[in-house]
Amino acid sequence: MIKKINNIAVLTSGGDAPGMNAAIRAVVRACSYYNLDCTGIYRGYQGLIEGDFEKLDARSVRNVINKGGTFLKSTRSIEFKTKEGRAKAYENLKKAGVDALIVIGGDGTFTGGLLFNQEFGFPVVGIPATIDNDINGTDYTIGYDTALNTVVEAIDKIRDTASSHNRLFLIEVMGRDAGDIALNSGIGAGAEEILIPEEDGGVELMMESLEKSKKSGKTSSIIVVAEGEKSGKTIFELAEHIGEKYEEYDIRVSVLGHIQRGGSPSCFDRVLASKLGVGAVEALTDGKSNIMIGVHHQKVVHVSLEKALKEGRKLDKELRRVANITSV
Amino acid sequence: MIKKINNIAVLTSGGDAPGMNAAIRAVVRACSYYNLDCTGIYRGYQGLIEGDFEKLDARSVRNVINKGGTFLKSTRSIEFKTKEGRAKAYENLKKAGVDALIVIGGDGTFTGGLLFNQEFGFPVVGIPATIDNDINGTDYTIGYDTALNTVVEAIDKIRDTASSHNRLFLIEVMGRDAGDIALNSGIGAGAEEILIPEEDGGVELMMESLEKSKKSGKTSSIIVVAEGEKSGKTIFELAEHIGEKYEEYDIRVSVLGHIQRGGSPSCFDRVLASKLGVGAVEALTDGKSNIMIGVHHQKVVHVSLEKALKEGRKLDKELRRVANITSV
Amino acid sequence: MIKKINNIAVLTSGGDAPGMNAAIRAVVRACSYYNLDCTGIYRGYQGLIEGDFEKLDARSVRNVINKGGTFLKSTRSIEFKTKEGRAKAYENLKKAGVDALIVIGGDGTFTGGLLFNQEFGFPVVGIPATIDNDINGTDYTIGYDTALNTVVEAIDKIRDTASSHNRLFLIEVMGRDAGDIALNSGIGAGAEEILIPEEDGGVELMMESLEKSKKSGKTSSIIVVAEGEKSGKTIFELAEHIGEKYEEYDIRVSVLGHIQRGGSPSCFDRVLASKLGVGAVEALTDGKSNIMIGVHHQKVVHVSLEKALKEGRKLDKELRRVANITSV
Amino acid sequence: MIKKINNIAVLTSGGDAPGMNAAIRAVVRACSYYNLDCTGIYRGYQGLIEGDFEKLDARSVRNVINKGGTFLKSTRSIEFKTKEGRAKAYENLKKAGVDALIVIGGDGTFTGGLLFNQEFGFPVVGIPATIDNDINGTDYTIGYDTALNTVVEAIDKIRDTASSHNRLFLIEVMGRDAGDIALNSGIGAGAEEILIPEEDGGVELMMESLEKSKKSGKTSSIIVVAEGEKSGKTIFELAEHIGEKYEEYDIRVSVLGHIQRGGSPSCFDRVLASKLGVGAVEALTDGKSNIMIGVHHQKVVHVSLEKALKEGRKLDKELRRVANITSV
Repeated sequence: MIKKINNIAVLTSGGDAPGMNAAIRAVVRACSYYNLDCTGIYRGYQGLIEGDFEKLDARSVRNVINKGGTFLKSTRSIEFKTKEGRAKAYENLKKAGVDALIVIGGDGTFTGGLLFNQEFGFPVVGIPATIDNDINGTDYTIGYDTALNTVVEAIDKIRDTASSHNRLFLIEVMGRDAGDIALNSGIGAGAEEILIPEEDGGVELMMESLEKSKKSGKTSSIIVVAEGEKSGKTIFELAEHIGEKYEEYDIRVSVLGHIQRGGSPSCFDRVLASKLGVGAVEALTDGKSNIMIGVHHQKVVHVSLEKALKEGRKLDKELRRVANITSV
Repeated sequence: MIKKINNIAVLTSGGDAPGMNAAIRAVVRACSYYNLDCTGIYRGYQGLIEGDFEKLDARSVRNVINKGGTFLKSTRSIEFKTKEGRAKAYENLKKAGVDALIVIGGDGTFTGGLLFNQEFGFPVVGIPATIDNDINGTDYTIGYDTALNTVVEAIDKIRDTASSHNRLFLIEVMGRDAGDIALNSGIGAGAEEILIPEEDGGVELMMESLEKSKKSGKTSSIIVVAEGEKSGKTIFELAEHIGEKYEEYDIRVSVLGHIQRGGSPSCFDRVLASKLGVGAVEALTDGKSNIMIGVHHQKVVHVSLEKALKEGRKLDKELRRVANITSV
Repeated sequence: MIKKINNIAVLTSGGDAPGMNAAIRAVVRACSYYNLDCTGIYRGYQGLIEGDFEKLDARSVRNVINKGGTFLKSTRSIEFKTKEGRAKAYENLKKAGVDALIVIGGDGTFTGGLLFNQEFGFPVVGIPATIDNDINGTDYTIGYDTALNTVVEAIDKIRDTASSHNRLFLIEVMGRDAGDIALNSGIGAGAEEILIPEEDGGVELMMESLEKSKKSGKTSSIIVVAEGEKSGKTIFELAEHIGEKYEEYDIRVSVLGHIQRGGSPSCFDRVLASKLGVGAVEALTDGKSNIMIGVHHQKVVHVSLEKALKEGRKLDKELRRVANITSV
Repeated sequence: MIKKINNIAVLTSGGDAPGMNAAIRAVVRACSYYNLDCTGIYRGYQGLIEGDFEKLDARSVRNVINKGGTFLKSTRSIEFKTKEGRAKAYENLKKAGVDALIVIGGDGTFTGGLLFNQEFGFPVVGIPATIDNDINGTDYTIGYDTALNTVVEAIDKIRDTASSHNRLFLIEVMGRDAGDIALNSGIGAGAEEILIPEEDGGVELMMESLEKSKKSGKTSSIIVVAEGEKSGKTIFELAEHIGEKYEEYDIRVSVLGHIQRGGSPSCFDRVLASKLGVGAVEALTDGKSNIMIGVHHQKVVHVSLEKALKEGRKLDKELRRVANITSV
C-alpha cells in the first residue's frame, strides 16, 4: 500500500543551472495548490545530512523565477556517498515528517537519489537541471537553453572584435561528454568550425577547413571547441598547433567559463521548469517514485532514474549536417 | 517530369520576426553548398512584382545571423493580391532564370505563395517565421522564442516597479488569435493572471482571482493580456473596470508593442532558422513544392501549404493548468 | 552643539529608479564601516508614519546591488503632507532611537525631507535617485543612465522592424519636464527627430524635416518624443497629424512606458549610488544636514535641499546641436 | 596660412572598442552637415599605406551606431612605424585629395598620428576610443562605459554560481596599466576585493581580508583582478597561493577576456562618440590640428596630442575608499 504524501522535500544538487529557482518555485506552488507541506533543504545532500531544512510556502518563492543560481544552494556532498551519511539523511527526513523527496540536478544528483531510494525505499523523484543537456530520456534539461543564449551572446561580442581585426578565435564552451552546447551555439553564432566530444578527427577536419578558408581569402574565423573535445590537446595547445602551420593567422583563445552557468533564465527554461516542477509533485501524489520527470515531444514524461542515468545519448547527425552546410 | 532546380529565389514577407536573417542566410549557404544560384528579392511580393532582385552568395550573408529584422526587407503588397500583379511577378522570375521560390513569413505569406503556385505551377516552399507561433503543422515558428524572451525581460523590469510600489499592472502582449505568447510569457514572468483569445470568461475569472488576492493580502500583481483577448474591451477599459471595483489598487497599463518584433534572435531561433533554411533548399532540389518546411518533435517535416494554413491549432491545456497552479 | 549620530535611518520614496538598492546598500555598509546602527524604513514616508522599521546590517544587503526597484519599497504618502502625519513620523524616529534620516528619491522626496527638517530640526540628507535626471545641483541622478540604456535597447529593437518595413515610428519616452532622456536616447538611438519639453515649435520643425526626408527618399524614421513635449498633442494625435499630411508614411506609435523604470542598474549607476550612499553617511557623521549629496565633475558635492529643489536646469544646447548634426 | 579643409579622412586603429562605429558615423555626418567630403580608410594605418580608401556619405553610416567593433576595421601596422611606410601614407592622402585626418583609437594610435603630423605637417586630430580609459586629458574614452557594463553583467552571472556553491572566484578583467575597469566594475559588481596595477601589496591585503571573511563565516567571494596587477603572479598562481593557505575555499578562476571589447555600445558611449566625432570635424574646420578631442566636466575639450600621451593619470583615491567601505 502506498503511503499518502503529505509533505514533500525539495533540494538542488550538483552544478547549478539557470531555472533551478523556477523549478523549486513550481514544486512549492504545486504543493500549495494541492494542500501539501513543502520542506526546502539547503545545500543539497549535505544539507539533508545536516538537517538544514526550512518550511516553504507559496510566498517563500516570490520573485525568484527570474533569478539565476539556486536559493536553496547546492554542494557536492562526499558524506552522502557513505552509507552512514545517507542513514543520517533518512533519519532527518523521518524526523521532519517528510514523505517524499524531489531532487533537482544532473546525473550525480540522480545517482544519489536512486541509491537513497533503493536503500530506504524512500520515494524520490528527479528533475533534470544541468546546462549540459546530457540526461537520457528528456529532450531538454533546465538551464540548457539559457546557457546557449549566454554563449551566443558572448560569441557575438567576440565576433565584433574578430571582424574588426581579421582574427581567428578559438572559443571553449562547456560540455565534457556532450557536444550539444558546442554544436547548437556554434550554429547559432555562425562558427566556421565546431569541435565536439562525440567526433574523432575534428582537428584534422579543422586544419583542412582552415586551408580552404585561407585560399578563399577568408581572414576572420570563429572556432567553437567543447571542453571535452577528443584531440587530447588543451585549447591553448590547439591554438599553437594552428599557429605553427598558419603564421598569417592572428590567433586568440577565449575560455567562456563560468558565465555559462549563470544569468536570468530564458522564457523556455522558466516554462520548462514550471512544467517539470508541477509534474514532479503530481507524480508523487499519484504514488510514483524512482523516476525522473522529463519532457519529450513537448509533453511531460516519466522516465525511470535507471534509464535517465544510462548513457547512449546520440549526436544529432542532422544538426551536424546543418552546421556543415551553413558554415560554407 | 520535374525541372532541375538551378536558381532559387528567396523573399521575406508580412510582419518581420527575429531570425528571418538567419533563415535567409541558411537558404543562401545551402544554395552555395549545393552549387545553386541564389536570388534575393527585396521587399517581399512587391519586390517580386517590381523586379527588385539581387544575386546572393555565401559572403553576402556574413554577420547577419545575429541581426533582428530582415535585410531583404518586407512589405505587405496589395498588387500581389491581383492577378496582374502575380503575372508580372511570374514574368520577372522567368526573366531572371529563377526555378523556384522560398517564401519566409506567416499565413499571409503562405496564402500568396500557394495562390502563385496554383496559378503558374511555379515551385514554392514556405518557411514559417512569425512571432505569433500561429501556423499549423510546425511546433515552432521562427521568432517566437525570441519574442517570448523579449516579453519576459520587459515584464521582469515592470515587476521591479510593481513590487516596489505594490501596484497592479495590466500588460498587453502580441497575439491576435493565438494566446501562445501570453500563456508562455505569463508563466515565464510569473504573472498572476493571463487573458487569452482562446478562452471565454477570462475577465470574470480575473475579477474572482483579484478578490482572492485582496483577501490574502497580496498587493502587487502582473496580469498578462493577449491583444486578441475575448472580452471586447481594450486594455485601458479593462483597467477602468478593475479600478471601479477595487479602489485600493494602484493600476497601471503597459502595451509592450513593437519591441516584441525586434532584437537579436535567441540561439533557439537561429538554430531553427538554420535547419528550416537548409531543409527548404533540399526539399526543392528533391522535387518537392507547395509545402512548408516545419519542425515537429525536433525533426524537420514537410507540411502542405494548405494544411499549414488551416485553422485548428489548439490551446495547450496542460500549459494552462501549469499556469493556474504556479500562480497560486 | 551637534548631537553625535549613532543610528541612521534610510528610506526610498517617489517613483522607483534602478540603483536605489545599490544606494541603500552603500548607506548600510557605510554605517557598518563606521560602527553606526542603520534602520531601514519600508514604504517611504508612509512607513515612517506607520513605524514600519527594520534594523539592517552589512549582510542584510547582500546580493541587492544588481537588482532593480527598491527592496525597502516606495509609496507616495498623502498623510506625510499633513502636519499630523509628520508628527507621527517624528515620534516613531525618536522612539526607535534614530538620530538622522537619509531619503532616496526625487524632488517630491526632497520637499518632504526639507519640510520635516524645518519642522522638527531633525537631520535629513537626500540622495538623488530618479530616472528623469531633473534635480538641480547634481550632474547625474541614480537610475538615469540605466533608463537611457533601456530606452536605446528598446529603440534598437523597434528600428529592426522600422528598417524592415520602411516605417515611421513615433516613440514616447519618459520626461515630463526634462528632455534629458529624449535628447540623449535620441542621439544614442540615432533618431531622426527629437521633441522635448524645453523647446517650442518642435512639431513644425519635425514636419519640415519629414518634408526634406521625403524628398531625399528616406523612408524609415524614428522620432523620439518626450512625455512632456510642448505641442499639447498626445503622441497618437501627433501620429494622425503626420498621417494627414503624408499618406505615404506607414506610421506606428510606441509608448515605452514602465519598462524605463526597471531593470538591473548599469555599472555607472551602481558606482554613482555607492559614492552617494557613502557620502550621505559621512555627511551626517560630519554634522551636516539639510543637504543633498550630489555629483559634480565626478566629485561628491553637498548641495542645500533648497537649491536642489530650485528649477533652472537648462537644456544642454551643445547636445541639441550634436543631435541636429548627427541626424542629417 | 591655414589651408581650407574640404576633405577629411577617418580611420580606426589599435584595439577595437564599442562606440567606434558611432564615432565614425558622427564624423561622416558632421562632414555631410558642413558640406565636406569624407574619406573612410580601412584597416587603420595599414590601409592608409595601401590606399584602402572609400568615400563615405551620410547614408553609408546608417544603422551602425548600435554595432560593436568598427566597420572600417583596425590593424596594428608595423610598416607605419617606418619612415617609408608613413611616406607612402602621405602620398596616398595627397593623391586622394584629403586635407586632414581623424584617427580614432588609443595611445598607439595617437603616437602614430603625432609622428605623422610632425613629419609631414599634415593636420591630424585624435578621438580617444579604448576600453581601458587610460588616456590623459579626457574624463572618458569611448568604449569604457560599455566594457564596464559587460564586466558587471558577466560577474553578476558568476555570482549566481558563486552564491549557489559558496565559492571563491578570482575574475580577471582587462587593464594592463590602469585599474579603472577593475575598480569600477569591482564596486559595481559588489566584489569583496579588487587588485589593481596602481597599488602595491594588494595580495597581502587580500589575504588579510580573506582571513577576516573566514572568521566572520563568509564563504562566497568575488575578487576582481586587473590584468596588470602588481604581484607578478598570474591569476592561476594567485588562486594556488590562496588555496595553499585556505584549504576550505572552493576556488575558481575566470578570465573574462575578449568579450570585454565587443557588444552594442551603451547610450553613454554612443552620445560620447557623437559629441567627439562632431567636435573633431569642427576642430579641423576651425584650423586646429595636432590635438585630441576629449571630454572634461561634460564639455568637449581640446588637448594636445603630446599631453594626451603623457602618463600621469592618477588612481581615483576617493573611489578606492568607496570600494573599501562598500565591501565590508
